Amino acid sequence: MKAEIIGIGTEILLGHIVNTNSSYLSKKLAQIGIDVYYHCTVGDNPKRLYETIKTALSRSDIVITTGGLGPTVDDITLETITKALDKKLIYIDKIYQLIEKHFKKQQIKTPKNNIRQAYIPKGSRWLKNKVGTAPGIIAKKDKKVLIALPGPPIELIPMFERYLMPYLKKLTHKKPFIIKTKTLKTTGLAESQVHPKVKEFLHLSGKTTVGIYAHPAQVDLKITTKAKNEKEAGRFILSVEKNLRKKLGDLIFGCDDETLEGVVSNLLFKNKKTIAIAESCTGGLLTNRLTDIPGSSKYLIHSIVAYSYKSKTDLLNVPEEILKKYGAVSRQTVVIMAKNVRMQAGTDIGISITGIAGPSGATKTKPLGLVYIALAAKNKIICREFHFAGERKIIKHSTSQAALDMLRRYLKA
Amino acid sequence: MKAEIIGIGTEILLGHIVNTNSSYLSKKLAQIGIDVYYHCTVGDNPKRLYETIKTALSRSDIVITTGGLGPTVDDITLETITKALDKKLIYIDKIYQLIEKHFKKQQIKTPKNNIRQAYIPKGSRWLKNKVGTAPGIIAKKDKKVLIALPGPPIELIPMFERYLMPYLKKLTHKKPFIIKTKTLKTTGLAESQVHPKVKEFLHLSGKTTVGIYAHPAQVDLKITTKAKNEKEAGRFILSVEKNLRKKLGDLIFGCDDETLEGVVSNLLFKNKKTIAIAESCTGGLLTNRLTDIPGSSKYLIHSIVAYSYKSKTDLLNVPEEILKKYGAVSRQTVVIMAKNVRMQAGTDIGISITGIAGPSGATKTKPLGLVYIALAAKNKIICREFHFAGERKIIKHSTSQAALDMLRRYLKA
Repeated sequence: MKAEIIGIGTEILLGHIVNTNSSYLSKKLAQIGIDVYYHCTVGDNPKRLYETIKTALSRSDIVITTGGLGPTVDDITLETITKALDKKLIYIDKIYQLIEKHFKKQQIKTPKNNIRQAYIPKGSRWLKNKVGTAPGIIAKKDKKVLIALPGPPIELIPMFERYLMPYLKKLTHKKPFIIKTKTLKTTGLAESQVHPKVKEFLHLSGKTTVGIYAHPAQVDLKITTKAKNEKEAGRFILSVEKNLRKKLGDLIFGCDDETLEGVVSNLLFKNKKTIAIAESCTGGLLTNRLTDIPGSSKYLIHSIVAYSYKSKTDLLNVPEEILKKYGAVSRQTVVIMAKNVRMQAGTDIGISITGIAGPSGATKTKPLGLVYIALAAKNKIICREFHFAGERKIIKHSTSQAALDMLRRYLKA
Repeated sequence: MKAEIIGIGTEILLGHIVNTNSSYLSKKLAQIGIDVYYHCTVGDNPKRLYETIKTALSRSDIVITTGGLGPTVDDITLETITKALDKKLIYIDKIYQLIEKHFKKQQIKTPKNNIRQAYIPKGSRWLKNKVGTAPGIIAKKDKKVLIALPGPPIELIPMFERYLMPYLKKLTHKKPFIIKTKTLKTTGLAESQVHPKVKEFLHLSGKTTVGIYAHPAQVDLKITTKAKNEKEAGRFILSVEKNLRKKLGDLIFGCDDETLEGVVSNLLFKNKKTIAIAESCTGGLLTNRLTDIPGSSKYLIHSIVAYSYKSKTDLLNVPEEILKKYGAVSRQTVVIMAKNVRMQAGTDIGISITGIAGPSGATKTKPLGLVYIALAAKNKIICREFHFAGERKIIKHSTSQAALDMLRRYLKA
């Protein structure tokens, strides 16, 4: 079954609001095996809306409109869908009673305009709006289904969950399948480096497919499967997941809603390790990410953002000779920072970062994006050099990602 | 001039990501008087994309596609627009050189696949991608303009601002009106507290209107006007802005793209003040926000995230008696933290934060969301108590916002 979602509202086309309804509905329809092939957005213009609905009805089985059901003359959905369906509008007293009740609760006299919302195309069903006044509408034409929902997400979501989801489930009843996804998240390689490793899986045709999605300093692989039931879906996903894991190994740091800071947090908990941090170019970002995780005070003793030469010598005891000879952005400096912050805090692990986030500060030998990260533990020191691209915030993010990944790998070993 | 925006990517139709590019582009096009009549989204399917582009070219003057320009075979935009334009793909060596440079900076060998991105439809222009590898494309067909932009907003936005905006401005040269907006940003009061102050302006009808938009710890007022030219628009906006400023006074911290951290940064520069930070419950977020601003090393000497009792005594010399008697989350503790971090770093200002971000750590007398912030300067100490609501990350954000606002008010005085 093919569906299409039409967002209605000039405010979307002006960029004043982001159309999150299409995204919400798409996710929900995918769950019950309805394929969404198009999203469209049109303004409050009867002619363009009419044509868009006509096109949608010609190519999709289910057409869902969102918005334009308000009480003012700007709201043209009701008239336009009625015309597209070749029907007439009829008045439903039960709807008007609900509208009156809605206003009475707030001790407001029902505004005159709202009577418009008590009309629906003849022969169609209507859905109760528990939050606002505009009912939803389900109409049929030549085996196609046209559904109109109110625009505000706080009205649309409960209406969808309560009334439309069960209706659509029944409608697709004879299509006994579900869609399930699982996302494997990697860090450490660029999209173009991950791609060749998993190339063969990106063209699976059939019930289970794999997509690759790049984010800053993270590449995700999303497995999507269509199956008869949860159990079968789990089996389909597992068979592909196993193969992807063989190819990617420990590049994968987590799944679905897991975050890298969450994974590192869990490992610190599980291994009962404490940590201290010394950051320079990331300016507190690594510490901020770790402290986003509830309970992080259990393992994080303290963090020093040493943003000046002075603070590197005063707070982290980096010898001035080292700073002069090798510079603040050097292997030598970062290693001392990690060792000293660990000693100072009396923790199991010390991690330190120094680098050039830009836009200024780069030299010929020390380019923008050059970063050193060191991890100090008992009898162990790991130090790595990185070269990141992009503007200041991206370099900060990529660096924090690399530091978390060094922690993850160390804690897993 | 009529425009249409086509988002490309199955991940949007599955509801995995929200299409924010359409909203961003719509806003920008409105600013220069280009009317957006349609948004469409299609999946990575050549046939449906081809038809969507053909329809768009038949009804709009400017068609902008976003996404599908990546290096993999899933990325079908390049081939499909070339077909829709009835052109051939040609190889541009200069693009390939930029791609190689991009990877070289990161010390990665250019992956084989990326050569695909060095092809463009014959006769078209290309736009440099300063963040990623896919160039943008501007092609013409029968007086219509077809523009292809990369999908990731971090690539699309700088490319649009730098290259496409000037191009489109020239293209719409003769347009008889423009739309201009100005956003006034406030912090310190909730939406329901700002609303009554500006109520009378929220129902302006005519060329200039005002909208109110709430974000975590921030309320924006957006003035929108339609005018013949920049000068007239400026006059329209100014007349409303003056009245809003009378009502809101110094609740307004900035306009449009200004951020609170950027405003504080400028004030520190202008007043030639240095700063040191001691954070507890915000876990580095305040420092991270300030260091997002280029050049922050000029004024920020260091920051200490004192996430444990031990670090509060060891690094910030908070006497153990104080911690025992009043607790880590208290006026007494936060004041000593601010004074000591200032002394230690030898800065003009010391700012400190302590509080309960949750989910655990709250007691009857010290509820979740209780926060103290202190600002120490020469012969001056300010300390305020706050009560924030929401989950951990929201409390962290609201707290950092309050601390920045204390800095702003102190530096402006």
